[in-house]
Amino acid sequence: VTSELFAKQSGERWDLQNAAVRLEGGADRADDAAWFRVTGDLELVFASDYVRGTEFLLFELGVLNYYDVGFYLAAANISDMAAMGAKPIALTSVIRYPRTLSDSEFAEILRGIRDCCSLHGCKNVGGDIGTAERVILSASAIGMTRPGHTLTRSGARPGDVVLLSAPTGVALAAMIYFDGKSKYGWKLEQRHEDHLSAAWKRVSPETKLGAFLSEKKLATSCQDTSDGLRATVEQIETASMVSLRIDMDRVPVAESVQAVASLADLPVMDIVFGGSVDFRLLFTVPQPDVRLIPSPATVIGYVESSPASGEVLPGSTWKHQIDPLAGYRRSLGAAHAEA
Amino acid sequence: VTSELFAKQSGERWDLQNAAVRLEGGADRADDAAWFRVTGDLELVFASDYVRGTEFLLFELGVLNYYDVGFYLAAANISDMAAMGAKPIALTSVIRYPRTLSDSEFAEILRGIRDCCSLHGCKNVGGDIGTAERVILSASAIGMTRPGHTLTRSGARPGDVVLLSAPTGVALAAMIYFDGKSKYGWKLEQRHEDHLSAAWKRVSPETKLGAFLSEKKLATSCQDTSDGLRATVEQIETASMVSLRIDMDRVPVAESVQAVASLADLPVMDIVFGGSVDFRLLFTVPQPDVRLIPSPATVIGYVESSPASGEVLPGSTWKHQIDPLAGYRRSLGAAHAEA
Repeated sequence: VTSELFAKQSGERWDLQNAAVRLEGGADRADDAAWFRVTGDLELVFASDYVRGTEFLLFELGVLNYYDVGFYLAAANISDMAAMGAKPIALTSVIRYPRTLSDSEFAEILRGIRDCCSLHGCKNVGGDIGTAERVILSASAIGMTRPGHTLTRSGARPGDVVLLSAPTGVALAAMIYFDGKSKYGWKLEQRHEDHLSAAWKRVSPETKLGAFLSEKKLATSCQDTSDGLRATVEQIETASMVSLRIDMDRVPVAESVQAVASLADLPVMDIVFGGSVDFRLLFTVPQPDVRLIPSPATVIGYVESSPASGEVLPGSTWKHQIDPLAGYRRSLGAAHAEA
Repeated sequence: VTSELFAKQSGERWDLQNAAVRLEGGADRADDAAWFRVTGDLELVFASDYVRGTEFLLFELGVLNYYDVGFYLAAANISDMAAMGAKPIALTSVIRYPRTLSDSEFAEILRGIRDCCSLHGCKNVGGDIGTAERVILSASAIGMTRPGHTLTRSGARPGDVVLLSAPTGVALAAMIYFDGKSKYGWKLEQRHEDHLSAAWKRVSPETKLGAFLSEKKLATSCQDTSDGLRATVEQIETASMVSLRIDMDRVPVAESVQAVASLADLPVMDIVFGGSVDFRLLFTVPQPDVRLIPSPATVIGYVESSPASGEVLPGSTWKHQIDPLAGYRRSLGAAHAEA
């Protein structure tokens, strides 16, 4: 399985204006590492992300399968490239599994990784495969940008406009919904359910938007919302030493998220700003350039000089808790006990 | 702790003949990824390794502490760079931990990673830190070589000489010894015990030798022995489509390994060739260039054309078992029961 999936990748080439990267080997010929010929002048981006994979509520509930967790692993890592404005080049994956995992389940994980990589022009060039007491999934990605074009969190300036690439809160709403569905028999329309599950099954990192913002040098700061929208706002504020003033009326809310908020009797903005791993981009752009930004990205505020306005955004920040729903679950449990 | 450890790294620069890499940011300024300016013409090497860390016999026995497992994590990844002849540049680390891990234990893991990186001119540029049900340690490394100078497993030619950088079997002997010490009260001289534990506590990847072999274009094939010596021989044979003829009388045996073999009543060559994760280099060199190879690397055989000689090397190949000592333990248990 692995040799088939990693085969015939050498020779793949990525180009930028004055630079090129070519995969030389290591992926289809088992070496200690993959290697690339790099020529010209470029910036190289490098990041790693671990994902919970099978030790995760939505996998345990059957919403996600092995293919989906592989797809998610690749997407989470590719999103870091998108957030930096980089063209994804290659991914290494660490897949450790218990002896109880079947060959076909293992192959499904690998196919999910490969398919997500393919969608973003990225190659899965190997990594570390072996046994462990449980499934452990981690990966790293490298990507390339033009010199001086890498997007960071630290360049937002007073007067810039704050944009969000797409609605947030969908991933957290999915967790709340499918948990409630299994426990209390909740049932939303199929289109809402599909929208919610897609936030985990088919994560779509914003590689096109990130590359566009980088290529045109439009964004003064950029970050993905993998820590939740509130945390992302706060992290750009800290890195750029500014204050982001969010206009709550302009923050987009997905229909499915509104439906879950009603069902769970939660303030919808707590979900939209909460610890929702949506992999959208929050970025700032100088006022005159806003017209150049393609939809569905939408203006949600503007940048003010520090100190912060003192207003507190809704949602609790995502601390990578073992159970990000603990708070919600307590209140849901209490509500249910009262009912 | 993390901000202190990652601080002030930007600006670090690595040079090769016609190329340079400079760390621009992302390590000390929290971004979604670290990024580097790359100029010139070079080959980039990229690999990932997971390590068992605290879910490992020698940690459970108290031979390894948190600092040591951090050090080991970095060393295992840097060894992949050494095996490819690459100068290590940067490491990203994934550190997931249970809530029971104290801040000081967490800091010890990070310090171990940083200290090992420092010894090899590598920077720890971030990664993924968060909670999990248990300690999970994984990392990735990037490194650089000159174009056409990356070392692979596939270039060994008939007539080449086979060399080993240092004795193998020490890591496996350490597992056998400390297991026996805890179970049966085994006790070797302190110098042997120190030598054995150092194979896990202070892994020393062969970055200098790897860079030398790459720079001078001396090695026709190269691989680290992280799968054990027998597996490494077999993998170079397969990749190069040749046969490596090993002269057993010339294979170096460490005193400590001989001592453990006697204590455990095991054939010493089963340990030397077995699933011992020693991170030494096995490499092939054209006959006339052998005089250029610095000690302690030593000739242990020569390359013949395929098909293989049919001789079977001692030691079982390392399959990344959950318990690599299972076989030994059964025989030790049986021997003990008989005694």
